[in-house]
Amino acid sequence: MSELYERVALIGMGLIASSMALAIREKGLAHEIVGTARSAETRATALELGLVDEMFETAAEAVAEADLVVLCVPVGAMEAVAKEIGPHLEFGTTVTDVGSVKRAVVDAVAPHMPKGVQFIPGHPVAGTEQSGPRAGFASLFDNRWWLFTPLEGTDPVALERLKNLVTGFGANADEMAVDHHDLVLSVVSHTPHLIAYTMVGVADHIRRVTHEEVIKYSASGFRDFTRIAASDPVMWRDVFLTNKDATLDILGRFTEELLTLQRAIRMGDGDMLHDYFTRTRAIRRGIVEAGQDTDAPDFGRAAKKEP
Amino acid sequence: MSELYERVALIGMGLIASSMALAIREKGLAHEIVGTARSAETRATALELGLVDEMFETAAEAVAEADLVVLCVPVGAMEAVAKEIGPHLEFGTTVTDVGSVKRAVVDAVAPHMPKGVQFIPGHPVAGTEQSGPRAGFASLFDNRWWLFTPLEGTDPVALERLKNLVTGFGANADEMAVDHHDLVLSVVSHTPHLIAYTMVGVADHIRRVTHEEVIKYSASGFRDFTRIAASDPVMWRDVFLTNKDATLDILGRFTEELLTLQRAIRMGDGDMLHDYFTRTRAIRRGIVEAGQDTDAPDFGRAAKKEP
Ligand SMILES: NC(=O)c1ccc[n+]([C@@H]2O[C@H](COP(=O)([O-])OP(=O)(O)OC[C@H]3O[C@@H](n4cnc5c(N)ncnc54)[C@H](OP(=O)(O)O)[C@@H]3O)[C@@H](O)[C@H]2O)c1
Ligand SMILES: NC(=O)c1ccc[n+]([C@@H]2O[C@H](COP(=O)([O-])OP(=O)(O)OC[C@H]3O[C@@H](n4cnc5c(N)ncnc54)[C@H](OP(=O)(O)O)[C@@H]3O)[C@@H](O)[C@H]2O)c1
Repeated sequence: MSELYERVALIGMGLIASSMALAIREKGLAHEIVGTARSAETRATALELGLVDEMFETAAEAVAEADLVVLCVPVGAMEAVAKEIGPHLEFGTTVTDVGSVKRAVVDAVAPHMPKGVQFIPGHPVAGTEQSGPRAGFASLFDNRWWLFTPLEGTDPVALERLKNLVTGFGANADEMAVDHHDLVLSVVSHTPHLIAYTMVGVADHIRRVTHEEVIKYSASGFRDFTRIAASDPVMWRDVFLTNKDATLDILGRFTEELLTLQRAIRMGDGDMLHDYFTRTRAIRRGIVEAGQDTDAPDFGRAAKKEP
Repeated sequence: MSELYERVALIGMGLIASSMALAIREKGLAHEIVGTARSAETRATALELGLVDEMFETAAEAVAEADLVVLCVPVGAMEAVAKEIGPHLEFGTTVTDVGSVKRAVVDAVAPHMPKGVQFIPGHPVAGTEQSGPRAGFASLFDNRWWLFTPLEGTDPVALERLKNLVTGFGANADEMAVDHHDLVLSVVSHTPHLIAYTMVGVADHIRRVTHEEVIKYSASGFRDFTRIAASDPVMWRDVFLTNKDATLDILGRFTEELLTLQRAIRMGDGDMLHDYFTRTRAIRRGIVEAGQDTDAPDFGRAAKKEP
């Protein structure tokens, strides 16, 4: 594929940035990839792994001469980064981000973007529970959706080029309004994460069941929650603090439904439970058919143990 | 390995029974395996797949001459089966079950067991979201725990032989008190399932987010919940109806913790959230170290997409 950007600067070098670097490199979508990270350790690792051509100590240095800048730091760190890089961005540069929340990032970043710079908020709907520069892999975004929430006045040519980048390494590009993004993600990602953290917290706190028991018998459902609840605490703290309204909204719905099911259990209403558990199967089918999950039983974990 | 039983009779022929049949066969742990299932279709499938040597139309016929009988039907169906087979059990036969709840099964089955029959309640802590005779595979129980909740007066020799059977095909055997089993499983399995069903139900019901959106963007956490919520509705209805007290108890704890986290979000208490999300990681580590889950990111789903 042909190069879409001369120089891509990745700000932050964790799971998402390192996966982007590998994917861009693999497909030859940029002439040069440079980066920066907060810690000297991460900067050294990025060079050691050959993720980038050059690492800079500061974001200000990293963005100079870049025609694409990608903000890959936790949502709560976006404002400081935007402030730092603003004065150093070249005219004509595109700035995007990969934050899991969009309204808060728009509010934090847009005011610091100088004239002549295109700020196009984005969010790759893909990830794992691991983080840091060693966690990345080039196929992370294969057949996953990359959402853009373009602001008024966005240059269609700049947007098109950015979409070509992500589709170039295997993602599907889509557009959404900023606030709708935060609502949708609160349903499919943020609230599920909070609930998983809560369930693992309950198991952690309850004294009548030991940690050893929880661990030994976790293959009966619980272990799936622990994977989600092993995700990065800083990233998720920031998500909940910055997508507060949508999360509280969906949590309210969740509690309402849970109390309804709880009442059905108390009353012994088997028909209600059976109906409820039957309807939820259709969504699973849709996800497997859309290629958004494997149809192998138990995500293929069980099958892998066959000789 | 040497044969531990002359004739094993499997009552019900779904995921668990078919996996047991394959595992017992593979390791040569019984001379003969026979079975029964409610529907003619399942009976035909079991024969077609060669799961058993013989299928019978009724449980009464299936248990005649068996020295081990395994009840593999939903928990709510155990009483009727016990009543039917009681008069046909041979003196010296061991009867066990695989039900996910133990107190209700003990109450339903024990009264129908004649003198000279050893009833030893059991529960394999392993499974997938799939069901029926085609869902089984021999390695389902590899390195998983098989819990027995023996009643007073159980013959230690009969118990030992049953444990040798399950360890013979790769499981680990353990003992637990009946009511403690139901509490532990409510923490590691029953409540997590109810919560997953609820979260999928919320996504199903909310009108401001379309089904298409939920499906497209499910790789951000939600899809894991849909796998659990695709489990058999009859099995899970029966679990909640029969493990009511422990489920309501743990649901109460869950709601309490969730409201605490919800309040922290509302108040913007980032430190509390960060602490909470950090502590839950230790349990994940324990599970991976105990071999109860893979340490591959995203259960290895993501990695599988690499070339
Ligand atoms: N993980 C996912 O599943 C996922 C999915 C979609 C979107 N996202 C979003 O992608 C972004 C990055 O996530 P990630 O998973 O790649 O994170 P990560 O692996 O934890 O990496 C975060 C990077 O940001 C740097 N950083 C952290 N705090 C910083 C601060 N206060 N100032 C400057 N730099 C800081 C870190 O530097 P050091 O290494 O030097 O500490 C690290 O290089 C987040 O906004 C997240 O919401 C994540
Ligand atoms: N699935 C799991 O993850 C798992 C894990 C551990 C323990 N368990 C327990 O194992 C038992 C079986 O579960 P499974 O997953 O193997 O179930 P399954 O695949 O749905 O199979 C259930 C079997 O029971 C028969 N059956 C259903 N209702 C019946 C009734 N009212 N009377 C007589 N037979 C009936 C079915 O017959 P037809 O095929 O003819 O309809 C089928 O052969 C349950 O008690 C469950 O709690 C399940």
